[in-house]
Amino acid sequence: MTEAASRPTLEAVAARAGVSRATVSRVVNGGDGVREPVAERVRQAVAELGYVPNQAARSLVTRRHDAVAVVIAEPETRVFADPFFALQLRGISKELTAHDNQLVLLLTEGRDDHARVARYLAGGHVDGALVFSLHLDDPLPGLIHDAGVPTVFGGRPGWGDDGRTADATPSSGHDPGVVYVDCDNRGGARAAVRHLVDLGRTRVAHLTGALDQTSAVDRLDGYRDVMAEVPGASDPRLVVESDFTPGGGERAMRELLGRCPDVDAVFAANDLTALGALRVLRASGRRVPEDVAVIGFDDMLPVAMETDPPLTTVRQDIEEMGRLMARLLLRGLAGGRDRTAAAEQPPAAGGVILPTTLIRRASA
Amino acid sequence: MTEAASRPTLEAVAARAGVSRATVSRVVNGGDGVREPVAERVRQAVAELGYVPNQAARSLVTRRHDAVAVVIAEPETRVFADPFFALQLRGISKELTAHDNQLVLLLTEGRDDHARVARYLAGGHVDGALVFSLHLDDPLPGLIHDAGVPTVFGGRPGWGDDGRTADATPSSGHDPGVVYVDCDNRGGARAAVRHLVDLGRTRVAHLTGALDQTSAVDRLDGYRDVMAEVPGASDPRLVVESDFTPGGGERAMRELLGRCPDVDAVFAANDLTALGALRVLRASGRRVPEDVAVIGFDDMLPVAMETDPPLTTVRQDIEEMGRLMARLLLRGLAGGRDRTAAAEQPPAAGGVILPTTLIRRASA
Repeated sequence: MTEAASRPTLEAVAARAGVSRATVSRVVNGGDGVREPVAERVRQAVAELGYVPNQAARSLVTRRHDAVAVVIAEPETRVFADPFFALQLRGISKELTAHDNQLVLLLTEGRDDHARVARYLAGGHVDGALVFSLHLDDPLPGLIHDAGVPTVFGGRPGWGDDGRTADATPSSGHDPGVVYVDCDNRGGARAAVRHLVDLGRTRVAHLTGALDQTSAVDRLDGYRDVMAEVPGASDPRLVVESDFTPGGGERAMRELLGRCPDVDAVFAANDLTALGALRVLRASGRRVPEDVAVIGFDDMLPVAMETDPPLTTVRQDIEEMGRLMARLLLRGLAGGRDRTAAAEQPPAAGGVILPTTLIRRASA
Repeated sequence: MTEAASRPTLEAVAARAGVSRATVSRVVNGGDGVREPVAERVRQAVAELGYVPNQAARSLVTRRHDAVAVVIAEPETRVFADPFFALQLRGISKELTAHDNQLVLLLTEGRDDHARVARYLAGGHVDGALVFSLHLDDPLPGLIHDAGVPTVFGGRPGWGDDGRTADATPSSGHDPGVVYVDCDNRGGARAAVRHLVDLGRTRVAHLTGALDQTSAVDRLDGYRDVMAEVPGASDPRLVVESDFTPGGGERAMRELLGRCPDVDAVFAANDLTALGALRVLRASGRRVPEDVAVIGFDDMLPVAMETDPPLTTVRQDIEEMGRLMARLLLRGLAGGRDRTAAAEQPPAAGGVILPTTLIRRASA
């Protein structure tokens, strides 16, 4: 095993250069107040010994790591199975790399590990955090707040600045002033359901996402907005709870066909749910879109192009969402050091909402 | 943005408890030498103020972070596209979580970012590193060595303790004493090629992996071992270089059919390469296995089960490989603190080689 024992110490550098530890420390950390000939001697000793400054010590001085944590509040198996996260990470990675910041992805087996994640965040290993896929009863936001790490959330957190009362509140005292990036979930859902109604469909169903996530709640609200406008359209049996996965979409679609065999349109909460629904519709002998029209959400490629038939869906720019989260965090961190850049600052709190677009393919 | 400014300081705890900063520090870091009534007062002040010890400061004392970095020497796009990495991470995540260690995945856009990764590793943010998918000319091993971080490698590194001279050596002075976990690449390849020969095939080809990785070189060597034993079997045109990806497999298979239209068997360096080869064989009107028998490597599920026809392949236990890497690293770290556990130590240097098994399905 490569061992740390042989690493040259600050003391060794000081001895070689014939100066004090404090002088070495000042030179290594870029501080002033050391005469140039002495500084040069220290730099030479550093080079000769191959001394690598301990960043834990250095960061106590500079308070900057050039590293940003990404926390996805899902088990690692889900992170690698759902292409949504890969796309979001792609945007984040590009933006952080362009600013020479290290992307530090903190993986977990599940919610039991969130306290450990918060400890790592509190431990002075990163400058800030990007957190997404929060669930309403997750203690993570409270723990992150207590850790005092600047954070940008992906998706509107479940406690709000929009007047809505969430089903649950974080575990500890929260400032409502959080920064988040989201897409227009409710508006996108409205556009999808209106399209189904405009096609002349009269039994329009909704397979929801995981309802402990605000994105799922907002999409359900968008569906309800439109159904409330159409006389006689609303029927609670047309709403089936699901969980954003293909397997969940299959189960929900089977339940829906049992409850309402006359269904003629389905708005699925995301493309993966639509994928599961399409499988069950095909197995039941129903034609899409002739018998049942189907619309998804995300426009996750290649999934949405490769379904049979290709999926009509609500597009959100997932990669751009990741990039924007990273940009807002980095600007906030820079602002903390350079107050002259105030015009470039993100808002101290609030959401940046990206637009959505209905993409028409063959399924509706 | 959630700001760090409001975080209670060590000074505040000291003031509240009526003791010195040094005393608070000793209590927080579990040190001795503080009388119990005083220690109790400090703990109470910590609880009342919600003080979170700065781990950068604490780690200077304890030198332990309970965090392990994972570095995959591939761009993040590749990490999320190739299920091999998801499986290895699954094993690592389970093992680290079982020991309450945080998995810190360091993602990059490419090799240009490896110096930054090494800086993070050197920065005192993790106790050790698990590094895999190394390429021979990558400076990362040298940088990691200089960083002085205990490391276990996944896959035999390209400089060796097996008498082989690698095509390239790391950038800086290396102890050859590295610990790694690998599977029996050469033996597995031999078993696959022998099976094809035993089926009576006389024109047995090999689509290689990326030859700047030892796993690809070892599998090619295994292929050559068997071909050298069969009189008249060797033909350099039967070896086509590829890169472990489905697209690379397609390109290599097309080239092979152009060179040797009489090919009747293909040993592909991994299952993804075989997947690409099967597509091209089907498009060319050849039946598998009747006209051309195909064998892959990895037994990556569900890929290998869902090819058409299901793939005969060499199984290695990828998840177990990840778990074992994590276990060896954690034991090494524990050994560094507890010399009495010497019997439980991993070897100071060398490889742990896991066995492989030929899995027969329909393709050969």
